[in-house]
Amino acid sequence: MALIVQKYGGTSVGSVDRIQNVAKKVIASRAKGHDVVVVVSAMSGETNRLIGLARSIIDPPNARELDTIMSTGEQVTIGLLAIALEAQGCPARSYTGAQVRILTDSAFGKARILEIDDKAMRADLAQGRVVVVAGFQGVDENGNITTLGRGGSDTTGVALAAALKADECQIYTDVDGVYTTDPRIEPRARRLDRISYEEMLEMASLGSKVLQIRSVEFASKYNVPLRVLSSFEDGEGTLIAPEDETMEQALISGIAFNRDEAKLTVLGVPDKPGIAYKILGAISEANIEVDMIIQNVGADGSTDFTFTVHRNDYKKALEILQSTATAMGARQVLGDNHIAKLSLVGVGMRSHAGIASKMFGALAAESINIQMISTSEIKISVVIDEKYLELGVRVLHAAFGLEEAA
Amino acid sequence: MALIVQKYGGTSVGSVDRIQNVAKKVIASRAKGHDVVVVVSAMSGETNRLIGLARSIIDPPNARELDTIMSTGEQVTIGLLAIALEAQGCPARSYTGAQVRILTDSAFGKARILEIDDKAMRADLAQGRVVVVAGFQGVDENGNITTLGRGGSDTTGVALAAALKADECQIYTDVDGVYTTDPRIEPRARRLDRISYEEMLEMASLGSKVLQIRSVEFASKYNVPLRVLSSFEDGEGTLIAPEDETMEQALISGIAFNRDEAKLTVLGVPDKPGIAYKILGAISEANIEVDMIIQNVGADGSTDFTFTVHRNDYKKALEILQSTATAMGARQVLGDNHIAKLSLVGVGMRSHAGIASKMFGALAAESINIQMISTSEIKISVVIDEKYLELGVRVLHAAFGLEEAA
Repeated sequence: MALIVQKYGGTSVGSVDRIQNVAKKVIASRAKGHDVVVVVSAMSGETNRLIGLARSIIDPPNARELDTIMSTGEQVTIGLLAIALEAQGCPARSYTGAQVRILTDSAFGKARILEIDDKAMRADLAQGRVVVVAGFQGVDENGNITTLGRGGSDTTGVALAAALKADECQIYTDVDGVYTTDPRIEPRARRLDRISYEEMLEMASLGSKVLQIRSVEFASKYNVPLRVLSSFEDGEGTLIAPEDETMEQALISGIAFNRDEAKLTVLGVPDKPGIAYKILGAISEANIEVDMIIQNVGADGSTDFTFTVHRNDYKKALEILQSTATAMGARQVLGDNHIAKLSLVGVGMRSHAGIASKMFGALAAESINIQMISTSEIKISVVIDEKYLELGVRVLHAAFGLEEAA
Repeated sequence: MALIVQKYGGTSVGSVDRIQNVAKKVIASRAKGHDVVVVVSAMSGETNRLIGLARSIIDPPNARELDTIMSTGEQVTIGLLAIALEAQGCPARSYTGAQVRILTDSAFGKARILEIDDKAMRADLAQGRVVVVAGFQGVDENGNITTLGRGGSDTTGVALAAALKADECQIYTDVDGVYTTDPRIEPRARRLDRISYEEMLEMASLGSKVLQIRSVEFASKYNVPLRVLSSFEDGEGTLIAPEDETMEQALISGIAFNRDEAKLTVLGVPDKPGIAYKILGAISEANIEVDMIIQNVGADGSTDFTFTVHRNDYKKALEILQSTATAMGARQVLGDNHIAKLSLVGVGMRSHAGIASKMFGALAAESINIQMISTSEIKISVVIDEKYLELGVRVLHAAFGLEEAA
């Protein structure tokens, strides 16, 4: 018998029928002898509806009050799921974040969990009840309702699993696991049985939207085994867990990509200390986040400086950069918002040489030009022309043998 | 400077525009120097939507969980109103029932308020904030969310006014006060400036749906002056308060009526002790409430027994009565579900003789036959044929001079 925390997202509880279906899945887990704590999101569309009401008064609305309003979305779902469980003969009890006492700081809209009181939940589990907890929300020390920010229900699930020392935190979603790459681009993409926290973090931050980065970080910090599963189909999903030393490690776990970025370059910047600071200082003052940064040393005492930003920030960043560049006497500013980032992710690459050259070779064989390169211990990213994105993904997927075994 | 509790019902907060309008009214009260605590209902239609969701799973749903779900309706409104107040430059803070700590018993769906903690509200008022409280809800000693039953927001308003020793509890609704009778039936009906708790209770229980009976009882018990006002028009409304000895008391305050009842009669019941008990025992065992009861002593050792029930219970009551009547050897059972009850209400009738005869005379002059009569200290009710209801109301309204002064 194990203690399992299951989290169901907005799509999984998007209608009364789907909530009934979730109740069936919970009851099936109980039938295997497990104790179950369920975390649910608001019914899909509900959070946006509530935010819309508030914003129609003033935008942005008072943050404390917006959290009070938004938190009702999950509160409705916990009640409905508890009713569905009871209706199917399974004792259940719902808890808001405040009722559990998921204590957070007071940063409304993006609160951090400080402490979870497990007493009430444990008492219910001991009495044979399923505990149904509202995701995404907590309460500060003054009794104000807080929310954890988008995707916060995943974080709630992992935090509860950590607090309860659960055997597994299962995240039910509309995909049946983590894939080597997006199956919509490479139909031969393979579901991974297992992936390490680190790899998952790289995959997530690079645009695989299966899990929130924050919840993976949390799981990694507290060593909570996470499993991504489908709400709608049966299957084992993908286990996200500490690196397993006993298993033969695959070189590459997957290929992530991202077409949300744009590239900006200043040509002919005087090659003096403080240049990078001057260029990026003005950008970050405008609250624009920078991803990749590359600086090439030039031969004539000047240098070229390139960085990427989110595509939504492209225009603003370009304007800022143009005035900075003029002020520092740079030769020219270039911009490109038709780029894509392609990344190989795998803990195996730590101990294997030649991954990078194999990657560059595979792309070169298809005449895909590499515009930027950036590497970390378990990742190699390249920026290419957006139009080669799908081709690039397929080429690398084949080159590293990631496809489904025949 | 006074402390005022204002309660706005579902229609008054039925849209974002109307919530903005409520904010304006609250700010206008503050501009007069008052401290304001606002109690709000769920936006109109919202409670029914939430109940519908729960019932689509199972009917009746688990009562604890239904309360958790229903309470979100008011929680959304408090947030929106606090946002609207802040947006208009008025400091405000919202409270759920649990956040105030409106302690109730654990009778989910019909909880009773046991105690109200006024500390947090007083602290906010002292800091110049408007306090916005969710009506209709509370929390039991175990932290479970409870609701007070339909119309519970009025009760919340009165209870907060009592706890805070407020100078007045203002109930904003879609009518501009309490009238001598329903203006849809008698266009010359006059708005009352003032009415006593007792009279209001009689008016309310007889079908004037301006206020919930429970909130009037509560106000009477704690001597909270209640004022009924329109959310949509300016005006003084009607003050419901203790009897004012210094004012000349009107004989009659108003005419209430009710066409929700049906009449049942057993003819030729053996006139023996325990007859009434036998007849009504079977009815009340079926959870049918009885309103008027009349028993006439017959001349031949038998008697006729008549009572009224809600029209919805008519068929069921008739069936039960038929079998009881057969068992006790009664002669016949009659029923009529086309009756109406008409009542004169007024504390003045205590000290004035002749009200009843004037009433009966006025009805007789229009050939309206009186089927049943029942009286209390401040009320005379008659049952007549339903088709004379409107005529009867107008005849009495004129006979007792209740119309608007020309």
